[in-house]
Amino acid sequence: MTQGARIVALECQDIRFPTSLQHDGSDAMNPDPDYSAAYAVLRTDLPGPQGHGLCFTIGRGNEVVVAAIEALRPHVVGRSVDELVRDLGGFSADLVGDSQLRWLGPEKGVIHMAIGTVVNAAWDLAAKLAGKPLWRLLSDMTPDQIVDLLDFRYLEDALTRDEALDILRAGRNGREQRIEALQQTGYPAYTTTPGWIGYSDQKLVRLSREAVADGFTQIKLKVGADRADDARRMALARDAVGPGIRIAVDANQRWSVPEAVEAIKALAPWDPYWVEEPTSPDEVLGLAEIRRAAAPVRIAVGEHVANRVVFKQLLQAGAVDFLQIDACRVAGVNENIAILLLAAKFGIPVCPHAGGVGLCELVQHLAMFDYVAVSASTEDRVIEYVDHLHEHFEDPARIVRGHYLAPTEPGFSSTLKPGSLRAHSFPYGSVWQAIRA
Amino acid sequence: MTQGARIVALECQDIRFPTSLQHDGSDAMNPDPDYSAAYAVLRTDLPGPQGHGLCFTIGRGNEVVVAAIEALRPHVVGRSVDELVRDLGGFSADLVGDSQLRWLGPEKGVIHMAIGTVVNAAWDLAAKLAGKPLWRLLSDMTPDQIVDLLDFRYLEDALTRDEALDILRAGRNGREQRIEALQQTGYPAYTTTPGWIGYSDQKLVRLSREAVADGFTQIKLKVGADRADDARRMALARDAVGPGIRIAVDANQRWSVPEAVEAIKALAPWDPYWVEEPTSPDEVLGLAEIRRAAAPVRIAVGEHVANRVVFKQLLQAGAVDFLQIDACRVAGVNENIAILLLAAKFGIPVCPHAGGVGLCELVQHLAMFDYVAVSASTEDRVIEYVDHLHEHFEDPARIVRGHYLAPTEPGFSSTLKPGSLRAHSFPYGSVWQAIRA
Repeated sequence: MTQGARIVALECQDIRFPTSLQHDGSDAMNPDPDYSAAYAVLRTDLPGPQGHGLCFTIGRGNEVVVAAIEALRPHVVGRSVDELVRDLGGFSADLVGDSQLRWLGPEKGVIHMAIGTVVNAAWDLAAKLAGKPLWRLLSDMTPDQIVDLLDFRYLEDALTRDEALDILRAGRNGREQRIEALQQTGYPAYTTTPGWIGYSDQKLVRLSREAVADGFTQIKLKVGADRADDARRMALARDAVGPGIRIAVDANQRWSVPEAVEAIKALAPWDPYWVEEPTSPDEVLGLAEIRRAAAPVRIAVGEHVANRVVFKQLLQAGAVDFLQIDACRVAGVNENIAILLLAAKFGIPVCPHAGGVGLCELVQHLAMFDYVAVSASTEDRVIEYVDHLHEHFEDPARIVRGHYLAPTEPGFSSTLKPGSLRAHSFPYGSVWQAIRA
Repeated sequence: MTQGARIVALECQDIRFPTSLQHDGSDAMNPDPDYSAAYAVLRTDLPGPQGHGLCFTIGRGNEVVVAAIEALRPHVVGRSVDELVRDLGGFSADLVGDSQLRWLGPEKGVIHMAIGTVVNAAWDLAAKLAGKPLWRLLSDMTPDQIVDLLDFRYLEDALTRDEALDILRAGRNGREQRIEALQQTGYPAYTTTPGWIGYSDQKLVRLSREAVADGFTQIKLKVGADRADDARRMALARDAVGPGIRIAVDANQRWSVPEAVEAIKALAPWDPYWVEEPTSPDEVLGLAEIRRAAAPVRIAVGEHVANRVVFKQLLQAGAVDFLQIDACRVAGVNENIAILLLAAKFGIPVCPHAGGVGLCELVQHLAMFDYVAVSASTEDRVIEYVDHLHEHFEDPARIVRGHYLAPTEPGFSSTLKPGSLRAHSFPYGSVWQAIRA
C-alpha cells in the first residue's frame, strides 16, 4: 500500500500558548513560560496519515528550533516511506551524523532537539502506518530490531550491544501480562498541577487536596526561589495531603552544590520524596556529591540532560536515584530507548518528565515500552502529569485514578488539532492577535 | 563623546567559505567542512566604530545560529552604549539569563554560541571605543572589575569570587614585563596546517617540513579515521620533523573510552605531545579514565566543551593535561575568563583552539590576557594556528617565527572586510554563485 510512496515535504510551524498570563508552569528558573511547540509534519504523497512531531519550548526561541528543523529538510524530503519506516535506526543515524550540523552541538541543544522532533515525527508515521500506538509498536519489536535502532558510540564502557540484547531478551518474560495490565489500569502518574511557584498558598492547598481526591499518590512542588517560601509551602502541602502521599520537590537548577546540600537538609523534615534538578543538569560530579551529602533524600534529574553520554555518566557516578527522560530534549525515540536500557543496566527507575505541551502525550509511550520490554516493573516509577493543553491534541493523554491509560490510537499521540494550530500560530494566529489587541 | 549613543540595530549575516573543495580543515569527524561565520554587527548611532562578532561553524546550520542571534535582538537594540560598555558583566548576564531562551540550552549549543557572538561583538565595540586591542583592555582592568564580569553560579565548589580575586591580584606582579614581552616576541603558536586528514602523504610531509622551517616547534595531525593510516602518517611526520619537534594528534571525538586507550597506546612509539578529543567532549568520567590508562601521553580537550560547568568538572576529575578554550563555543569573553581562572586554580595550562575562520583572530586576545593577568606564564602553552582565511579580516592574526604577534589595532580583531562579506554571503554572494554556475 505504501510502495513507492515518498516523503514530499517537511512542514514546520511555530506554535505558542500564552500560558504566562496565568503563571501556569512557573518555577524558580522559569517565572513566565509561554508553552510552545516547534511543530513538524513529515508529509507523504499517501492519502492517509502523516508523521507529526513537536519540540516543546517555553516561548522565545521557539523559532530557532523551527529553523533547526528546517535545516534537516535535505535529509528527509524525497525519502522512500517504506525504507524510512523499515530502518528508523539508519534514519536517526543520518540526522545525528550530518558532519556539518554536528558542529552545532555536538549532540546537544537546539540541533539535537530538532533532530529529536523529526525522528519522533518519523516514528509517529511508522506507528500510524502499522496501525498501532507507538508504545505497542515498540513493544512488538524483537530485541534484535530494537538494538538496531541504537547508536552505541560512547556507550560501550557502560552498555554493550550484547548487554542491551540480554536486557531486552529478559524483558520478554511476562510481556503479555504487562501489556494486559497497561490496558486495564494504565501506568502510575504523579501531578505537578498544584505546585507552580506563582500560585498562591490557597491555590496550592486546594489543588493538593484535589490531586489526592483524584487518586494521585504523589504530587510535586516547585522550590528554589526563596528558602522561607519553600519551607512554608512544603509544610502547607504536607498538611493538606497527610503523611501517606509522596511530595517531590523541584528546584529547577537554582542551587550551587553546597547551597543544594543545605537547602535539601532544610526541607528534609517534611519528607520530600525526591529533590529534582538541585543544580546544573551538566553537573555529573556535583550531583553525585549532593546525593551523598543529602542522603537519604533522593535525587532526580534528566529533563535537561543533553544526551545519552551525560545520562551514562550520571549513572556511572551514582548521581541519581530517579532518571527523568524527556521526549523532546534528546534525539528522539531511538536515543531515549538507549537511555532506558542504560537505566535498566544500572537498576535505576525511570520517571519521565512531562507537562509542557505534548510532553505527557509523547512520553507515556516511552514509559509504557519501558514497562513492557525493559524494566518490567512499575515499582517506584511514575510519569509526571500536568493538566494543561491536552484539549489541543487529537489523541490526548487520559488520566484515570492517578494512572495514564494506555493509548489505543495509532501513532505517537503527537498530532495537534488543525484548529489549535491555526489559532496558536505565532505571531499571527487569532489567540496572539487577540492578546495584542 | 558616546554620551546618549544607543545600539540601534543588531545586523546578522550568513557568511560561508567553500573550504571543502580543497579538503582544508578535514578531519575524522568532519570530512568536508565549509568554514562559516554567523556574523553579527552591533550598530550604534555613532559615526565611528561598530561592534563586530562572529560564531564559527562548518557550513550547514550556520543559518540556525543566525536565527538564534536574531532571537537576542530585543536584549540589545535600544541599549545605551555607555551603559553597555560600562557593565559588560550585566549585559552577559541578561543574555544568559533570559528565562525562555534558556530552555534551548541550558547554556549550551546553538543558543549559547549565539550569546557568545553578541557578547563578543559588545567587547569589540568596547575595545574600539577604548582605543585598545581587547587583550590590552582586559589586561588593564582591575581584579575587581574582572570578577564583576563573571557568573559564579555553579562554580563555587571549585572557584569562589575571593579565590578568583586572589589569582588576579597575584597576576599583577610582573604585569608590565609580560606586556612588553608580548609586544616584542608575541605568544607561542603551533600549526595544524600540515595535518588535515584529507591531505596526501606528500602534502603532509612537505607542509610538516615547511612548518619547522617557519619556526614552529609544534605541529598537529588529525587521526581517528583508520588505525593503519594514523600510524603511517604519524611515522611520516615524525620522520619529517625529527625528534625535537612536538607532534600533537587530534582524534576529533572518534573513539569510545576503551578504543581511545588502545589507539593512544598504538601511537605512543612516535611520542605524541598530546592526544586531543579522544572521545565525546561530554565525557568527564571517560576522559579521566582515558588519561589514567594512557599516561604518560597527555590529554587535551575543550573546543567542543559546552560551558564552564563542564570545564570545571574536567578539572575536578583530573581528566585533562591541557585545556583548549574556544572563542565561539561558550558565552563569549566573560565565560572564557571564568574558564581561564578555573584552569589557573587547578594549575592546568590553557592552549586555545583556533583555525576555522576568525578563531585565531579572536582567541589570541584571550590567551594574551591569560598570560598578562592570570597564568603569568607561557610555559607549556601554545595557541593553535592554521593559515586559512586570514586575508578576509581587517586586522588579521600575524605570525612571525612561530609566534602570534600582539594585536595593536583597537578591538577584538573580529571585523571582516566589506568585500569579503559581500562575496561570501550565503547563498547569493558571488563566490557561491560562481560555484553553482
